[in-house]
Amino acid sequence: MATKTTPLSGFPELLPSARVVEREVIASLSRTFELHGFANIETRAVEPVDVLLGKGETSKEVYLLERLQKEQAGSDAGVGLHFDLTVPFARYVLEHAGHLEFPFRRFQIQPAWRGERPQEGRYRQFTQADVDVVGRDELPFHHDVEVMRVMVEALDALPIPPVSFQFNNRKLIQGFYRGLGLPDLETAIRTIDKLDKLPPDKVAELLVSDAGATSEQAQRCLELATIRVSDTSFVERVRALGVEDELLDEGLAELAAVVEGCSAGAPATVTVEANLRIARGLDYYTGTVVEIFMAGYERLKSVGGGGRYDALATDGRTTYPGVGVSFGVSRSLIPLLADGVLAGSRAVPSAVLVAVTTEETRAQSDLVAASLRAHGVPCEVAASAQKFGKQIRYAERRGIPYVWFTQDDGTSQVRDIRSGEQVAADPDTWSPPTDDLRPQVVMKEQQQ
Amino acid sequence: MATKTTPLSGFPELLPSARVVEREVIASLSRTFELHGFANIETRAVEPVDVLLGKGETSKEVYLLERLQKEQAGSDAGVGLHFDLTVPFARYVLEHAGHLEFPFRRFQIQPAWRGERPQEGRYRQFTQADVDVVGRDELPFHHDVEVMRVMVEALDALPIPPVSFQFNNRKLIQGFYRGLGLPDLETAIRTIDKLDKLPPDKVAELLVSDAGATSEQAQRCLELATIRVSDTSFVERVRALGVEDELLDEGLAELAAVVEGCSAGAPATVTVEANLRIARGLDYYTGTVVEIFMAGYERLKSVGGGGRYDALATDGRTTYPGVGVSFGVSRSLIPLLADGVLAGSRAVPSAVLVAVTTEETRAQSDLVAASLRAHGVPCEVAASAQKFGKQIRYAERRGIPYVWFTQDDGTSQVRDIRSGEQVAADPDTWSPPTDDLRPQVVMKEQQQ
Repeated sequence: MATKTTPLSGFPELLPSARVVEREVIASLSRTFELHGFANIETRAVEPVDVLLGKGETSKEVYLLERLQKEQAGSDAGVGLHFDLTVPFARYVLEHAGHLEFPFRRFQIQPAWRGERPQEGRYRQFTQADVDVVGRDELPFHHDVEVMRVMVEALDALPIPPVSFQFNNRKLIQGFYRGLGLPDLETAIRTIDKLDKLPPDKVAELLVSDAGATSEQAQRCLELATIRVSDTSFVERVRALGVEDELLDEGLAELAAVVEGCSAGAPATVTVEANLRIARGLDYYTGTVVEIFMAGYERLKSVGGGGRYDALATDGRTTYPGVGVSFGVSRSLIPLLADGVLAGSRAVPSAVLVAVTTEETRAQSDLVAASLRAHGVPCEVAASAQKFGKQIRYAERRGIPYVWFTQDDGTSQVRDIRSGEQVAADPDTWSPPTDDLRPQVVMKEQQQ
Repeated sequence: MATKTTPLSGFPELLPSARVVEREVIASLSRTFELHGFANIETRAVEPVDVLLGKGETSKEVYLLERLQKEQAGSDAGVGLHFDLTVPFARYVLEHAGHLEFPFRRFQIQPAWRGERPQEGRYRQFTQADVDVVGRDELPFHHDVEVMRVMVEALDALPIPPVSFQFNNRKLIQGFYRGLGLPDLETAIRTIDKLDKLPPDKVAELLVSDAGATSEQAQRCLELATIRVSDTSFVERVRALGVEDELLDEGLAELAAVVEGCSAGAPATVTVEANLRIARGLDYYTGTVVEIFMAGYERLKSVGGGGRYDALATDGRTTYPGVGVSFGVSRSLIPLLADGVLAGSRAVPSAVLVAVTTEETRAQSDLVAASLRAHGVPCEVAASAQKFGKQIRYAERRGIPYVWFTQDDGTSQVRDIRSGEQVAADPDTWSPPTDDLRPQVVMKEQQQ
């Protein structure tokens, strides 16, 4: 049928053993989210263009759909592929609000598409894992702690390098700037957000020239932005800057609660920090904000992020506030797989290759396989009745750890082809050690 | 962020409790496929248009991608969404052949897109589950039995109404027609394929007018097509029609092997038949063909199908023969969910709602929840410290079966809100009965 192949830049595809890693990561994330009562949904891949362009700035990245035969198009005219999972989720909440219970906890692990220039960690098709809590009209602050805590636990359970959650709070920044008397808060926030690209001096200049700050005010903004600690001591350090504001107080209390809540129980491979220069560019965040970084892969920038939005969605009458956080599955995994940091232990689910002695006795091997499967041992029967040495190499090439031989007298032997050890075994009861039962994720020494 | 909702015809979306059903179906299919050694892959959602149009006839159904800002397009120009999983799989095999071991067993469960007119069972975005074995240069026939057997077991394990596998074999049909002396085999096959739309008389007329058959030959073709049995007795009945041909012999032997292999072990809810009018329109099938029907839903036509193709893919030097079968996950589940035949037992993963006595003691409830999760009990903490009656109704609305109360003295009680029974319990050890631990798929009496 197909006769040619065309690798497409920005549309990465995994070989079966790498896909083992991706599936285990997705399964592990799902397990944690479900332990916390988050329900899974999937939204359709497309949204009407006006919904997609609600955010404005992303218009250049959207893929529109067009029918090959244009005259056929009907209600599918003017739709495009979603470029994240937040916009479709907001639309889903509005469309199905009458059938949902609020606060609504959901997770969503799906691909999204962006027409941007492909580079390491940035793809045109990529999978994200999003977890959000959404309320109707109101959503108590404790859900900020809850949802961030869930993602901390979810990433702590993953076989990936250590990650760092860097939290801030928009109320803290806005309150500080207001208390300081800055005339243009929005511009000031956007300017401070450039600290990861520009040197502090330059940012200070821009605060003066663009955001109307005095150089004294600009200096204090920079001092605030340099505070970065892994406990709640930031509260005192901010107080020491001498700015007074009610919103600042609220932001400090919220950030302290998030940092404490996420540090509780001392996650093994996740560090939690208050980093007061994190702002996140998107205008709709109104409280907690977070960016997630992966050790050794700081060059990818954040591998996840999110925050609180007091108006995730609104239909004019009802407003749906939300808080959520997203983890870039493709963004983090594809570089880790490419670097050999992560690998699947084998390319096939089979733990056992059942050898075939002659084509005439293939049915006997099929029966052995059926017995093994009946108690949950994944296996396959050899494709042809080659010499046993060839059948063993067939298993070896696939990473299948065991080969099963049926003797003429009807008894069986199973051989661990790694050690060469061969023992008598009953197909109705024999199982491999748990680690051999399914392909495992192997994490190698990081090559950084 | 979003401010309006636009339901899109042909792009169905599931509420959380229906998604429970879809996820369990996908998990169950995956379990069976993996027990048989099939590896999971996912292909990118897009293919170059020339790959998509290799099959020709489907051109009107393809969605092309276009960048909103057209001048930005690069290597993503001229791509469209795949409309099945076979075309992308064939391309994947060619592109990655150097990294795959053959015979290559894979399964793939992904959405596909077609711009066709939406109706029950036919959607513009739909999920399919495909399982195939592909060889390099050659693929022994026993893989036909293997792959069909895997799908029989996979559907037998699903919580859906009984399904029927109706097998035929292209060699059988072609050999019979050739032995009969028909001048135009391809046209004859395509004409017989119309038996589900046209009465036999009309089909006989077309065999004469279009396929150049004599009316005697047309009569025998119809006689062949009416043979439908659930064992291998079709062999004798075909022989009784008095046609002799080597290819016919081969086809009869293959079909008998497939019917026997798939009936072995007497699947509980799957019937296996030889139905000699099944031809399947697509030209690339060369041996085994199958269509799958679901009891009470014959109006959907087939909910799955597939067969043997001696040239799934070729790069000019190497040919990759394959045999596979596809199950329409959306095509079958969405009507079953709409009719209430299938439902999820609850909309949330939580088995327990941990009640909150006062906002001041929320941390105590969080600790109980953490203890429950530590041994695998999904739970959530109440959103607010309402009266207990309200918290119980909050659980009821979500279908959460248990509510956990923490007493002032630090001890706990758990209440089954369906029976009202309340007992003392330790959050470190208490678990609900297995059936309550996760949402279940509930299959109701069929409403046909």
